[in-house]
Amino acid sequence: MTGNSEAWLDAVHWDANGLVPVIAQAYDTGRVLMFAWMNREALQLTNETRQAVYWSRSRNRLWHKGEESGHIQKIHEIRLDCDEDVVLIKVEQVGGIACHTGRHNCFFQKLENNQWVTDQPILKNPNEIYKHE
Amino acid sequence: MTGNSEAWLDAVHWDANGLVPVIAQAYDTGRVLMFAWMNREALQLTNETRQAVYWSRSRNRLWHKGEESGHIQKIHEIRLDCDEDVVLIKVEQVGGIACHTGRHNCFFQKLENNQWVTDQPILKNPNEIYKHE
Repeated sequence: MTGNSEAWLDAVHWDANGLVPVIAQAYDTGRVLMFAWMNREALQLTNETRQAVYWSRSRNRLWHKGEESGHIQKIHEIRLDCDEDVVLIKVEQVGGIACHTGRHNCFFQKLENNQWVTDQPILKNPNEIYKHE
Repeated sequence: MTGNSEAWLDAVHWDANGLVPVIAQAYDTGRVLMFAWMNREALQLTNETRQAVYWSRSRNRLWHKGEESGHIQKIHEIRLDCDEDVVLIKVEQVGGIACHTGRHNCFFQKLENNQWVTDQPILKNPNEIYKHE
């Protein structure tokens, strides 16, 4: 028997803006890829389509990750934390590039001697990733 | 030469409440342990003391992780994302328990057939972790 189709969404403690923070992690290597937000519809779509759909706070709309770049995230697991207010998704990052800068992941700045040092290469030029016709 | 002691903190884009979201990850296994928040002082203390110090939004004060339980987090790396508004720390979780429920980490609820299913054991009874005299 499967659960009520809405109950699992009701269990999530959405914040005052109706959002929940989401951590995306590579299912195979365990590397943390990015951090973003989902609203209820985004999380429901993520589960249904098995591809990550976020809520873009800057664009104020649903954001199907990879919709422009092709770098979609295929869902392997969806997890919820102890307080039911943070989601962790384990994904296959298609193209191996999660960051809009063209890097593997977004956490490419490491603190060394009180300075942020970039230690990840740009794998693909963002101008080539996001082609605006 | 090391950087100006404050410049790296100025680089962080603190939110309207002066906070930044923080993901804590086990430095060795890559498992995501927990999600919390830091303010400027917490991040500075985290870097100086090499132990995770968060900002508790519920208690409205600095929260030295493990201050009651002994389950401190020793810092291995501090990272910042592409937008400078999310921090990732790689830590050694002392005691192997990051979650206040007594589990290894906070993300012990996995979505299966539209239901959240707990798939991590309680390693230590919370009543034994948090001894109130």
